[in-house]
Amino acid sequence: MKYLGGIFLFVVLLIIDTKPTEAVCGYESCPETKPNMVNIHLVPHSHDDVGWLKTVDQYYYGHKNNIQHAGVQYIIDTVITELIKDPKRRFIQVETSFFAKWWEQQTETHKLVVKKLVNEGRLQFTNGAWSMNDEAAVNYQSVIDQFTVGLKFLDETFGICARPRVGWQIDPFGHSREQASLYAQMGYDGEFFSRMDHSDKFRRMVDLALEMVWDASESLSEVKLFTGLLYNHYWDTPGFCFDVHCNDDPIIDGDSYDNNVKSRVDDFIAFAAKVAANFRTTHIMIPMGGDFQYEDAEVNFKNMDKLIKYVNARQATGSHYNIFYSTPGCYLNSVHQGLQSYPNKTLDFFPYASDSNSFWTGYYTSRPTQKRFERDGNHMLQTAKQLSVFAGLSSEQQKEDLDYLRQIMGVMQHHDAITGTEKQAVSNDYDRLLYDGIIGGASNARDALRVLTNLPEGEFESCLQLNISECAFTKDSADNVVVTLFNPLAHTSSQYVRVPVKKESYQVTDEKGRVVASEVVPVAWQVLALEYRDNNTQHELVFKASVNKIASYFIKKVETRENKEIVLPKSDKKSVKETEKNLEVPKRFKKVNSMKKVETHADDDSETVVQTSQIKLVIDNNTGRLKSVEMNGVVEDIEQKFGVYETSASGAYVFREVESTEMQFLTTDVEFTVYDGTLVKEVHQQFNEWISQVIRIYEGVNRVEFEWLIGPIPTDEDTGREIVTLFYSEISSNGVFYTDSNGREMIRREKDKREDFTPDLSRQPTSGNYYPVVSRIALQDSNKRIALLNDRAQGGTSMKDGQLELMLHRRLIRDDGYGVGEALNEQKYDKPLIARGKVYLILNSVEESTKVERLAEKEILLPFSVFFSKASSQSQTQSAIAKAVPSFDDFPPSVHLLTLEPFTDNEILLRVENFLDHIEGKVVSFNIRPIFDSLGGVEIRETTLDGNLPLSEMKRFKFHAEGSGAISTEAEYYTAAHKPLAADSSLEASEFSVTLHPMQIRTFIIKKK
Amino acid sequence: MKYLGGIFLFVVLLIIDTKPTEAVCGYESCPETKPNMVNIHLVPHSHDDVGWLKTVDQYYYGHKNNIQHAGVQYIIDTVITELIKDPKRRFIQVETSFFAKWWEQQTETHKLVVKKLVNEGRLQFTNGAWSMNDEAAVNYQSVIDQFTVGLKFLDETFGICARPRVGWQIDPFGHSREQASLYAQMGYDGEFFSRMDHSDKFRRMVDLALEMVWDASESLSEVKLFTGLLYNHYWDTPGFCFDVHCNDDPIIDGDSYDNNVKSRVDDFIAFAAKVAANFRTTHIMIPMGGDFQYEDAEVNFKNMDKLIKYVNARQATGSHYNIFYSTPGCYLNSVHQGLQSYPNKTLDFFPYASDSNSFWTGYYTSRPTQKRFERDGNHMLQTAKQLSVFAGLSSEQQKEDLDYLRQIMGVMQHHDAITGTEKQAVSNDYDRLLYDGIIGGASNARDALRVLTNLPEGEFESCLQLNISECAFTKDSADNVVVTLFNPLAHTSSQYVRVPVKKESYQVTDEKGRVVASEVVPVAWQVLALEYRDNNTQHELVFKASVNKIASYFIKKVETRENKEIVLPKSDKKSVKETEKNLEVPKRFKKVNSMKKVETHADDDSETVVQTSQIKLVIDNNTGRLKSVEMNGVVEDIEQKFGVYETSASGAYVFREVESTEMQFLTTDVEFTVYDGTLVKEVHQQFNEWISQVIRIYEGVNRVEFEWLIGPIPTDEDTGREIVTLFYSEISSNGVFYTDSNGREMIRREKDKREDFTPDLSRQPTSGNYYPVVSRIALQDSNKRIALLNDRAQGGTSMKDGQLELMLHRRLIRDDGYGVGEALNEQKYDKPLIARGKVYLILNSVEESTKVERLAEKEILLPFSVFFSKASSQSQTQSAIAKAVPSFDDFPPSVHLLTLEPFTDNEILLRVENFLDHIEGKVVSFNIRPIFDSLGGVEIRETTLDGNLPLSEMKRFKFHAEGSGAISTEAEYYTAAHKPLAADSSLEASEFSVTLHPMQIRTFIIKKK
Repeated sequence: MKYLGGIFLFVVLLIIDTKPTEAVCGYESCPETKPNMVNIHLVPHSHDDVGWLKTVDQYYYGHKNNIQHAGVQYIIDTVITELIKDPKRRFIQVETSFFAKWWEQQTETHKLVVKKLVNEGRLQFTNGAWSMNDEAAVNYQSVIDQFTVGLKFLDETFGICARPRVGWQIDPFGHSREQASLYAQMGYDGEFFSRMDHSDKFRRMVDLALEMVWDASESLSEVKLFTGLLYNHYWDTPGFCFDVHCNDDPIIDGDSYDNNVKSRVDDFIAFAAKVAANFRTTHIMIPMGGDFQYEDAEVNFKNMDKLIKYVNARQATGSHYNIFYSTPGCYLNSVHQGLQSYPNKTLDFFPYASDSNSFWTGYYTSRPTQKRFERDGNHMLQTAKQLSVFAGLSSEQQKEDLDYLRQIMGVMQHHDAITGTEKQAVSNDYDRLLYDGIIGGASNARDALRVLTNLPEGEFESCLQLNISECAFTKDSADNVVVTLFNPLAHTSSQYVRVPVKKESYQVTDEKGRVVASEVVPVAWQVLALEYRDNNTQHELVFKASVNKIASYFIKKVETRENKEIVLPKSDKKSVKETEKNLEVPKRFKKVNSMKKVETHADDDSETVVQTSQIKLVIDNNTGRLKSVEMNGVVEDIEQKFGVYETSASGAYVFREVESTEMQFLTTDVEFTVYDGTLVKEVHQQFNEWISQVIRIYEGVNRVEFEWLIGPIPTDEDTGREIVTLFYSEISSNGVFYTDSNGREMIRREKDKREDFTPDLSRQPTSGNYYPVVSRIALQDSNKRIALLNDRAQGGTSMKDGQLELMLHRRLIRDDGYGVGEALNEQKYDKPLIARGKVYLILNSVEESTKVERLAEKEILLPFSVFFSKASSQSQTQSAIAKAVPSFDDFPPSVHLLTLEPFTDNEILLRVENFLDHIEGKVVSFNIRPIFDSLGGVEIRETTLDGNLPLSEMKRFKFHAEGSGAISTEAEYYTAAHKPLAADSSLEASEFSVTLHPMQIRTFIIKKK
Repeated sequence: MKYLGGIFLFVVLLIIDTKPTEAVCGYESCPETKPNMVNIHLVPHSHDDVGWLKTVDQYYYGHKNNIQHAGVQYIIDTVITELIKDPKRRFIQVETSFFAKWWEQQTETHKLVVKKLVNEGRLQFTNGAWSMNDEAAVNYQSVIDQFTVGLKFLDETFGICARPRVGWQIDPFGHSREQASLYAQMGYDGEFFSRMDHSDKFRRMVDLALEMVWDASESLSEVKLFTGLLYNHYWDTPGFCFDVHCNDDPIIDGDSYDNNVKSRVDDFIAFAAKVAANFRTTHIMIPMGGDFQYEDAEVNFKNMDKLIKYVNARQATGSHYNIFYSTPGCYLNSVHQGLQSYPNKTLDFFPYASDSNSFWTGYYTSRPTQKRFERDGNHMLQTAKQLSVFAGLSSEQQKEDLDYLRQIMGVMQHHDAITGTEKQAVSNDYDRLLYDGIIGGASNARDALRVLTNLPEGEFESCLQLNISECAFTKDSADNVVVTLFNPLAHTSSQYVRVPVKKESYQVTDEKGRVVASEVVPVAWQVLALEYRDNNTQHELVFKASVNKIASYFIKKVETRENKEIVLPKSDKKSVKETEKNLEVPKRFKKVNSMKKVETHADDDSETVVQTSQIKLVIDNNTGRLKSVEMNGVVEDIEQKFGVYETSASGAYVFREVESTEMQFLTTDVEFTVYDGTLVKEVHQQFNEWISQVIRIYEGVNRVEFEWLIGPIPTDEDTGREIVTLFYSEISSNGVFYTDSNGREMIRREKDKREDFTPDLSRQPTSGNYYPVVSRIALQDSNKRIALLNDRAQGGTSMKDGQLELMLHRRLIRDDGYGVGEALNEQKYDKPLIARGKVYLILNSVEESTKVERLAEKEILLPFSVFFSKASSQSQTQSAIAKAVPSFDDFPPSVHLLTLEPFTDNEILLRVENFLDHIEGKVVSFNIRPIFDSLGGVEIRETTLDGNLPLSEMKRFKFHAEGSGAISTEAEYYTAAHKPLAADSSLEASEFSVTLHPMQIRTFIIKKK
C-alpha cells in the first residue's frame, strides 16, 4: 500500500493546488499586479480558424496534417491538462464552435474539472462567438446570430463565469464599426485586434494611440467601445514561440552548456520595454500563441512558467518588470483601473493595408457565389426560426436541424469562410455543410408549414436553384402547383414571385380564388446555356404576391392558342450566333404570352425606352447600354458599364492593381433584346462572350434590378481578371460616397482620405479606395442621390464624382502570399466558375429620406421564402391557414422583426430593431403585449443583444475619450441605459411598451406556458 | 463548495483508475491475452537518440528545433501525464540518460506518481542502459559499464520493478554477438532490433525465422538469447503514425463527414494479418513510435485508445484480432508461454546492408579521432575508478566527477556517437563533454594519487596530447619531473613510456634510485609539422617501466657534450623539401643521443634491416616499404601499403565503392629514415604529402607498431577518399579471416559468405566483406598466423588470401541519405582533419596460442596511465608509496581485472574475467579473499554482470532452438548456472574461491566496513 500513499499525496496536492473554493471568475479572478512596475499580462491563446487551409473537421481532428499541422481536439485536451497543473496558469478559448465539439466528447468527470477551471477564471472564454467572424462581408443579423449561438452554449454549459468580457478579433482583415457597436450592445467591455493599415498603426504607435475609445454608432450615443490594437500582431513575441511547431529556443535552465536563462530574459525584457513605450498605462499585454498553437500545451506552459519565474526573479535585483499569466479581460480590467484617457475613433478600419502595395480589398468580393450562398443560408435560417416558433416545433430532430443551421451559419461568418479566403477544397466543404444546414432548415420549415397550413399534400419543396430559374418540382408539377410564401419581415409585403415553368400559359389565383395578374418571361438564354442546367424550364411565371406572414398562391396551366413562334435573340452578330451554335440549345427563345419583344436597331442612334409607371429607362441603341433613368421624379443620365481589371498579383485577400494600367471597359457592341411585359420589363444584354445582364423593372416597384451573369472569366498565364459593374452619373459627389457597415448604419467615405491618417495610395489608387459593400453604396449631391444595393457582399468604391463601382467576380492566377497558397480560380463542373447576381439601383432626390433604401435592403436580404407543393382538388376549397400566425403589422413601419426564434424549450427570443437612423427616423414606441400573448408568453425579460444576459445585469467599463471632460477619480461603468423590460403576464399591457431609438435593437426572452 | 465536489469526484476516479494496489510489475503486470486470437501487442515507444543531428542537451531541451524537432523533456512529461489517465496504457522508456536528467527536475510528488506507474508496469524500462549503444565500434568493457550505470540508476530510483527484461537495440546498424552475450549475462530474456541485411530479412520472413535463439558465445554454453527482428523497422505501422509530427490520418470517430473508423480499422487489421503471417506464435508486436515521437503524447494515446477500441469492437462480429497496450517484455512473455521452437543463430549480424548497394560499413571507421578519444575516455574511467577505490575517495565532488565520466562514457557508446554518424556540431559537443569528463576523471586520479603516494608536490598532470608528443607540463619541467604510472591491469606489466622532452639528455631513475635505461627519440617531422602543435618538444624520452599498480620514475636533465648537429630528413625528394619549406620548421631533426640515423639508398635494390632481439624487419630500399618480418621464430614476406578508395557516394554510414573501380595504391616513392636506438627502432616513412608512418619495434616487445598519420585527405567535387592500410602475406588463408566481437570473442569470417543466407555482393564486393574490427583482425593457414591489433575501432576485411585490410580514415563529399544530412568532412582548426593512430602486427606460428594477442589487446586498451609531477628534493628520498594498494598479481594470468569501482558509498564493484576462450584457456580458480580483505570487505554478493541484481535472483526465459530436442510442455527458465558467491567475512577463505570458465565474467559487490 506504499504507493497508495504516493498517489494520495498527489491527489491531495492537486486539491490544494486547485483551490476549490467558490467560483471567483471574471475580473475577480484576475492576477494581482504591482504598482510602479511594468505589468506584463502574458496571454496564452490559440488562434483556431474555423476552416481555412483545411476544413473545420480536419482542423478539429488534426486530419490532413500534410496540408497544415493543426488539431484542435489536442489543443483543448492538452491545455486543460496543463491548466489543472497550476492554478496560476490561464488560457483563453475563443472559437466556441470548436469548444462545443470538444465538450460533447468529454466524460462527465472531465466536464466537472473543466467547469472548475472556468469558475476560477483559469479557462477564460474570450470573444466566445461560434467563430471569429469576418467584419467586411458579414451582415449584422448573422453576426448577432452567431454570437447568440456561441454565448448561449457557454451560458448553458457554464453559467455566468463563462461569459466573455472582451472581443478578440485578432485575425480579420479590417474592422467594422458595426462589429464594435454589436460588442457594446452585447455588454462587452472592449475589443482587441491585430490588423490595421500600416500607416495608421505607425502613427498610433508614435502617438500612444494603439488603444482608443470607439464611438461605434452615429445614432446610439452610448455605444462606445474600448478598442486596442495588439502591439505585434497576435503571434508570439519574436523569438519566444514556445510551441511544439515552433523552433525558437526553449528556456534552458538546467545545468547545461546550453543554459540560456540570462539571454532569454534579457531579450524578453528588452521586448517588453519596447512594447511598454507605446502604451499609456503601466500594463502591457503580450499574447503567447498563434495559429493552432498549443497542440502540445505542455511545451508552451512549461517554458512560460520558466519565463515568468526568471523575469520576476530579476525584481530582486531592481528590475521593474512584473510578469504573470493573464487574459485580455484581465488586461482590460487593469487598464480600466488606470483611469487614462484615450483618443477617439468614429469611423472604421477599412481598408486594411499590410503595406502600400497590399490593400486587402479583394476578399470583399472573392468567391461571389459562396458569399451569396451564405445569404441563402441566412434567409433559410430566419425562415426556419420564425416558422419553428409559430408552429411550436419541438422534436429533437427539429431542434437539431435548426441548431445545425444556426451553427453552420456561425461557421460561415468565419473570417476565412464568407471572405472567400480559404482553399478550394475547404470552400467545397463549406458548401456541403451549408447545403446540409439549409436542407435541415427547409425540413423544419416544411414541418412547420404542415402544422400551419391545411395544404393536404404539402411537400413544400424549397428549390435552391431558383437563381438559375431551375426547380425540379415546378418543372414536373407547374401545371398544378401551390406556391406557399413566407414573409420573414414584420410587415405585410408585396413582392414579385418568379416560378420556373415549362409552358407558356398559366393562371394564378390567391387563397380566395381570385385571379392574380401573371405573365411568363423567357429566361435569359445565357442562363439556359449553362451546361449544368437542366433545360426543361426555359421560362418563369411572374406574379405579384402580397403576404403578411404566410400566404399560398395556386398555379394552373391554361390552354391557349398562342403563336408558338420561336424567337431567337438578336442574331446579327457573329459571336452570339456562334455561341448559340456551340451551345446547341437552339430554338430557345419564344415570343411569349403577354410579353412584347422589341426589335432594336443597332445601326441608328435612336433610343429604346423601357418604362413602368414608376420608372423610365432609356437604352442607347448605339451602345446597347443604359443611358438614363427617371424615377422618383428625378431624371439622371446614368450610364452603366462593366469594367475589367487585368491583374497579375491579386489574390484571395488582396486586390492588387497593376501599376499604371487602366481598367478595360466593355462599352461597345452590346447586344440587347427587350422583353416588354405588363408586370415586368427586361432588357437582356450581352456584353461579351462571358458577361451578360438583364436590366429589369417591375410594375409598382421603385428600383431597377441589374441581374448580371459573369463567367467563365478568361485568364492567361500572366493575367487574372476582376470584373466590376460601373454606374456613371452627373451627380457632383465631390469625392464623397457612403457605404454601409455590415448592412446597418452608413459610413461616409471620402476618396483618398482616412479618418485618422494619410494613406499611401501611390501604388494602389483604386484598391486603396475600396470599401466593403454589404448592402449598399451611395452618393449624392445637393439634389440627387443614387444608391446601389446588392444581394451579397462586394467591394466597391467611387473613383470619380458621380460614379459608383462594385466588384462582382474575380478569377486570378496567383496566390497573394498570405497563406491560402492557391490562386483564387474557382471551378464548377470543371469549368471556371460562372456567377450570377443582382445589383439594384435607386435614384432619388436628395430631400427624400433614404428610408426607401432601408426598406429595400430588408426586402433584398429577407424576401419571401418560397415553398412549392402539389395542388389537390381540395386545395382551394378550404382555408389554407390551419393555425393563426401572429401578425407584426402593428409594429411601427421602421421596426424590423430582426429575430424570432426558439430559445430554450420553453422560451422564445424576440429581437426588434428600429432600422432607421437618427436622420431618417425617430424614436418609436409600441406595445408587444399582443405578440407576447399570441406567442403564449407568461414571462418576459429583456437581455443584452445576444439574449444570454438579463439586461439589468449588464455593467460595462466606461473609458474616457480625450477631450471629453474631467476624468473621474475612480473607474466608471455603463449600465443599461433604458429601463429593461422584465415583466410577467400579470403586468399591465403598458408595461410591455417598447421604445426604440433610431438604430436601437432590443432583445427579449419570452417564457411560454 | 459545489465545485469542490467536482474536483473531488475527479480525484476519486483518478484513484480508482490507477488501482493503487501493491506493486505488480514485470511480467505479472502484463495485459491479458486471448487464446485463439491474433494478439496484437501495441508497444508505445519513443526512440530518443542520445545525440545525432542535435546534441544531447539540444535533444533533451528541445533546443535548435530548426535542425530537428525533438524535445525529450516534453516526451517524458507528456507520456507520464497520459499514463496517469488510463491504467491500461503502457510506455517503454529506453534511454536512461535522458530519463535520469528528467527525473532530477521533478518534484517529489511527481516522482511518487511516476514510481506508481513503474510499480504497476505501466511505465516499463526497456533496455535501460545509459544509451542505446552501437554494436560495431564499442568495446565490451564500455558496454558493460554503460549498462551498469543505466541499470544502477533504475535500481536505486525504483527498485526491482524498473529492471528491464529485454534488450531493445532498434536502431544500431548491425548487431554483435557479444551484445547478445552481455544481455544474457545481465539476465535479459531477449533482445529486439530492427536492422538486418535485406536478403537475410527476406529469407527469414519466408521461413518464419525473424525470431531465433542466439548462441551468443562459443565458450559459454548457457549464453543463449531469444532475439527478434521487428517486422517493419521500429517506426509505426505505415499509415498509423499518430504523432504530433506525423501527418497520417487520425482516427475520426465523431459525427463527422470525415469519420474513418471503418477504413482505418480495415487497414490496421490488414497490416496485422500480414505481420501475423510471418511469426510463429499467435502473438505479434507492433511498435508505435519513432524518432523523438510522443512529444505530444496525448495525440498518440488518444488515437491508439480509439484504435484499440474499434479493432476489438470487431470481435463482436467475429474478428479474431485482439489488440491491447503492451511492451516488448510482455510480448516476450507471451511468446515464451507459446512453447514454440526457434531457429538457431551462432555468428552475428554484420555487415548490415539496407539494399544491395548500401552496406553500412563506413561507420566502422568514421571519425577515427573521435573513436580514439572514446578509448582515452575509457582508459581514464578505468584508472579513475580503480584509484577511487584504492584511495577511498568519497567527497561529493569526487563522486560527481566520477559519475559524470561514467555517464559521458555511456553517452559515447551511443549508436550515433562512437559510430561517427552524427553531425559535426554534435561531434564537437561529444568532444567537449568527453573532455570535461576526462578532466573530472583526471582530477579524481590526481586526488587519489595524492592519497596513495608521498609525492609532496604531486600535481599529477595527465597530458591528453601525448599522441602528438605534446605535454605542457613536461615541456616546462622535463628537466626534473616525476612520472607516476598507474597500471589498470591485474598483473604487473612492463611497458615502454614516452615523455615529450625539449632537450636531448636525461637520466631516468626508479623509486629505488636505480637508473633505468632510456633514450631520446626524434618525433616524426610530420607530427612536428602539424600547424596546431606547439613545437617546443620535438623529442620523446623513452624508457621501459614495470608497474604492479602504481610506480613512479624520476627524470633529470643530464648535461652532455653530444654533437648538436642538425640532421634533416632525407631531402633528395622535392616534395619533402617543399613541405618542409612551407611549414617553416626547419632544422627540426637532429642526430640524437643513442640513436643512429641510417642513410638509405633509394637507387640500389638493397634492403634495410631493422631489428631487436625479438623482431627483424626488412625494408625494401627500392619501395621504401616493409618487405618481410621475422618474429616468434616465423619468417614471412609481409608487405605493407596504404590504399585509397576513391568514392563519391559514401557517407558517414555507408562505405560505397564505385563499381568497377580499383583501389588506388600508394606503393612507390616512399621515403624513409631509420632511427636505430637501443630500446626502440623506428622507420619513419613518407608515403605522400598526407600519409606518413612510423614503424616501430621495442626491445623486448613482441609486436610491431605501425603508427600512421593521415591527412588532410584531399578531395574534389566528385571524389571522396577512404584510406586503408594493407598487409600482404603469403599465408594461404583460403578466404577465411577472424575479427573480434566488441574486443572479446573472435568470430570466423569467410569472404563472400554469411552464416544464414547468400549475400548480394554484386555491386559492393569489398564493402560487403567489411566487418567491424574493434581490437583485432587475423588470418592463418596451417603454419602461420598474422594478427593486426588496433587502438580504436575500424572496418576491416581480407579480400585476398593472406591479406588484411583496415580502413583508417575517411573524408567524403556527400551525405549518404540516411539522415545525418552532412558529408563526413571533418575539419580541425579549419583544415581537413589529420588523424594519427597505431596498428600492431603480430606474426606467429599457428601452433602458438593466440593468448599473446589477448594480452596485447589488454595492454593496448589499458596501458599505463601516465601522470606527471614536479620532482622535489625529497622526492626520491622517501618512499613514493603512502598507502598500500592491493595487488592482483596472484590472479591467474588469464584473469583480467575488468572492473574495480566504487558502487554505493559503502560498496565496491569487482568484475573479473577469464579473457581466454575455450581454445586458448581453461577453467581457472582463485581466491579473492585477499582482495576482499585488502578492500576492507565485510560482505560480498555475486550479481548479474551489471552489478544490480543478486545472481541468486536471476531467472531467465529458456527458449528452444530447433533440433535441440523435445520441447517441454511448460515454459522453462535459466537460473544462475554456478553457485553464486554470496558470503560475508565470517566465512572461510575457501568460500571466496572464484572459478572462471573460459570467457566467463563474474561480478561481485563487496560491502565495506
